[in-house]
Amino acid sequence: MLLPELRSQICEANKALVPSGLVRLTWGNVSGIDRASGLWGIKPSGVDYESLTPSDIVLLDLEGRVVEGSLRPSSDTKTHLHLYREFPEIGGITHTHSLHATVFSQAGRELPCFGTTHADHFHGTVPVVRALTPEEVAADYEHFTGVAIVERLRELGLHPLEMPAVLQLHHAPFTFGRTAMDSVNNSIALEMCAHMALGSLTLNPSLQPLPDHLLEKHHLRKHGPGAYYGQGGH
Amino acid sequence: MLLPELRSQICEANKALVPSGLVRLTWGNVSGIDRASGLWGIKPSGVDYESLTPSDIVLLDLEGRVVEGSLRPSSDTKTHLHLYREFPEIGGITHTHSLHATVFSQAGRELPCFGTTHADHFHGTVPVVRALTPEEVAADYEHFTGVAIVERLRELGLHPLEMPAVLQLHHAPFTFGRTAMDSVNNSIALEMCAHMALGSLTLNPSLQPLPDHLLEKHHLRKHGPGAYYGQGGH
Amino acid sequence: MLLPELRSQICEANKALVPSGLVRLTWGNVSGIDRASGLWGIKPSGVDYESLTPSDIVLLDLEGRVVEGSLRPSSDTKTHLHLYREFPEIGGITHTHSLHATVFSQAGRELPCFGTTHADHFHGTVPVVRALTPEEVAADYEHFTGVAIVERLRELGLHPLEMPAVLQLHHAPFTFGRTAMDSVNNSIALEMCAHMALGSLTLNPSLQPLPDHLLEKHHLRKHGPGAYYGQGGH
Amino acid sequence: MLLPELRSQICEANKALVPSGLVRLTWGNVSGIDRASGLWGIKPSGVDYESLTPSDIVLLDLEGRVVEGSLRPSSDTKTHLHLYREFPEIGGITHTHSLHATVFSQAGRELPCFGTTHADHFHGTVPVVRALTPEEVAADYEHFTGVAIVERLRELGLHPLEMPAVLQLHHAPFTFGRTAMDSVNNSIALEMCAHMALGSLTLNPSLQPLPDHLLEKHHLRKHGPGAYYGQGGH
Repeated sequence: MLLPELRSQICEANKALVPSGLVRLTWGNVSGIDRASGLWGIKPSGVDYESLTPSDIVLLDLEGRVVEGSLRPSSDTKTHLHLYREFPEIGGITHTHSLHATVFSQAGRELPCFGTTHADHFHGTVPVVRALTPEEVAADYEHFTGVAIVERLRELGLHPLEMPAVLQLHHAPFTFGRTAMDSVNNSIALEMCAHMALGSLTLNPSLQPLPDHLLEKHHLRKHGPGAYYGQGGH
Repeated sequence: MLLPELRSQICEANKALVPSGLVRLTWGNVSGIDRASGLWGIKPSGVDYESLTPSDIVLLDLEGRVVEGSLRPSSDTKTHLHLYREFPEIGGITHTHSLHATVFSQAGRELPCFGTTHADHFHGTVPVVRALTPEEVAADYEHFTGVAIVERLRELGLHPLEMPAVLQLHHAPFTFGRTAMDSVNNSIALEMCAHMALGSLTLNPSLQPLPDHLLEKHHLRKHGPGAYYGQGGH
Repeated sequence: MLLPELRSQICEANKALVPSGLVRLTWGNVSGIDRASGLWGIKPSGVDYESLTPSDIVLLDLEGRVVEGSLRPSSDTKTHLHLYREFPEIGGITHTHSLHATVFSQAGRELPCFGTTHADHFHGTVPVVRALTPEEVAADYEHFTGVAIVERLRELGLHPLEMPAVLQLHHAPFTFGRTAMDSVNNSIALEMCAHMALGSLTLNPSLQPLPDHLLEKHHLRKHGPGAYYGQGGH
Repeated sequence: MLLPELRSQICEANKALVPSGLVRLTWGNVSGIDRASGLWGIKPSGVDYESLTPSDIVLLDLEGRVVEGSLRPSSDTKTHLHLYREFPEIGGITHTHSLHATVFSQAGRELPCFGTTHADHFHGTVPVVRALTPEEVAADYEHFTGVAIVERLRELGLHPLEMPAVLQLHHAPFTFGRTAMDSVNNSIALEMCAHMALGSLTLNPSLQPLPDHLLEKHHLRKHGPGAYYGQGGH
């Protein structure tokens, strides 16, 4: 079996979705990539998280061809593929329909940085990605979802590890990370920040984002060259 | 004992209500039918989910007569009976008072399709079913609940597997499915969609449903003839 | 040890508060009475639910004297005492600060019957009990809390088993029942109804209670002389 | 190993953060002090709560020097240090980003005492602490966070054990206590009170705090010289 450690990491990251409260039923998938070989793996479609094992993970190449695996890969595979091709910095992707991040996606509301919880993970406003056109949906729905995500981050000049989350209009969030589990952690953070933002907007509908000097401080404390959070950098 | 597998499926589906978060106390019941024999089973009334066993499931025929079972069937039995008689396509029914679906039922608000989570399970707006008249309540409350549900779906030209959910005014939701567990999964999806909708409406009280081309795409991706979600069709 | 079965029932009912989600820390207590002997028992003050055993339950008589028990009874003991003296029909009392019932109590909002979930347990609007005066607080806070509850139900002509719940202004709910566990179940139902009502009022701030014929039907289906819910009456 | 009992208490208090629902990921830390020796301990930075052991706790003196421990202390260490130096009465400090307390912090809304749940733990309105200036952030972010907290409580004439909680603007809550676990319990109470307040304000946006005589009664019932809650006072 190819890449047993990558398979384990992806399996474990998918299994983390349920206890994290991010998914109901089978509404979520995590993938991860081994940049050295250019191979990546993703959850098979419609399979329960509980029964998932490392050997169930479907391995593909960067042309989207299945390299190893007997199950059908997630129906969102082409979205992940496009993101790995266009964002060479990322090592993992998580897609869920987590409750509050989806609330913002459905309402087409971007998620401003209202506090340091947000600043610790996302460098500014989490953007909304447009819905696809009828032509894109007819041609290749999942591929163009990836295209729209890449287009939006580039339009805004955002780096996918500085802004490792997007909210797709009428749909739900996608998050990125250095590894599969790192992308899950960003989904956990995004869900919590969206929940906090909904509450804060209820108390103050015209709430403004936190000042820039606090955004910079909190983001750099965890992610900058002089990061001093944790036990020794990334 | 008749139909041991059907009994097991119905028992398991009822037991799934508690960990799914859909019921408190004994506020919910699931039934399932074997179309070949025309026999169907339902949870006994007021029995704890935890202690429920397959042999507790009460079996009835399509005239509503108990065929096997020593316990009294759910007080909602006549509602299920009418639905099985009028909707030959369905194989399972779930009734709960799940929190957010009941919030919409109590408020008499239909549930528009605000995103792809909804479109994946329900083909358009989940309708509200009218409350019963004093005469109907006096004559046969549970039977006429079924009558009102069938009447509403027919009025709207909806197929019960395309729109496997209704919200009864002042009451709570009912969902349908191909099997008992499938109807439970639709209750889980309905509860989540209602929760998401409440949040999205808080952010944007005049929110509009998602465009038709996205509704069609998501519904057909899972349910159409060319469905490509999961590991091989239904 | 006196009344071992009553002690067990009260202990079990107190322990049910934590998994039910009704209490945090030690914010809740349940009592139960044996009408034959006139003795009743209550949770000791400030003791963890997890470590509670039947022998920890403090037994008192209807004059409020401790009959058996080495621990100090709940600080709310005099409230329970007054209720047992004035309401001979009740067999159990639960007091919690459960989240949504307390939200209504703090806001001084009575809880109208917005649906059948409510009608199944509470016969109409759950009333608000006034706050105590400075004189009552100085004289005997817990005793006068009981006095105010009794006064309010009588003022409204309500029977404590027909309306087994009140919301005290600035404070929290009290519920009653035939037994200790029955009063806990009414607290679970009250919390759920308050949560549903908050959501329904968010969707429709001028929402009206359900029609009388539905209130009567649902209440009598469970509680009337011809009750047909459960496996054989109360 | 120095102060094994203090280490155990701090370890246990940190581990209590996850089941209490107060933290996601590693967003929280608890410290505790031994006033006799002037030594205090805190959670190491970025370490999982599950794997935390008493020997992982980092011990420091009141000059902020690490006395024992091989891991890097929490990135919030200088905030805790300043609080221990300025508030000799306190024995424990908890910092989390718990959901509803953070909702109020982000919105810059102080938390009025809307009910007896609040009065039992916090003597009046929980104050908002200002955000730091760009100069303070540049000079020593965590130290000046402590400075701003102390400044705010003194400005308002509040004693840290009478008002063992603050909400920092754009950030999150800090709570204090007699011991590490006591400060965790105050964080649990604060989160619940903030959640209740958000609901009560939804029902009544112009809700007023409870009357003074109830605030005094509830606070003194638990904390005053004649306290009669629990099994024997503090």
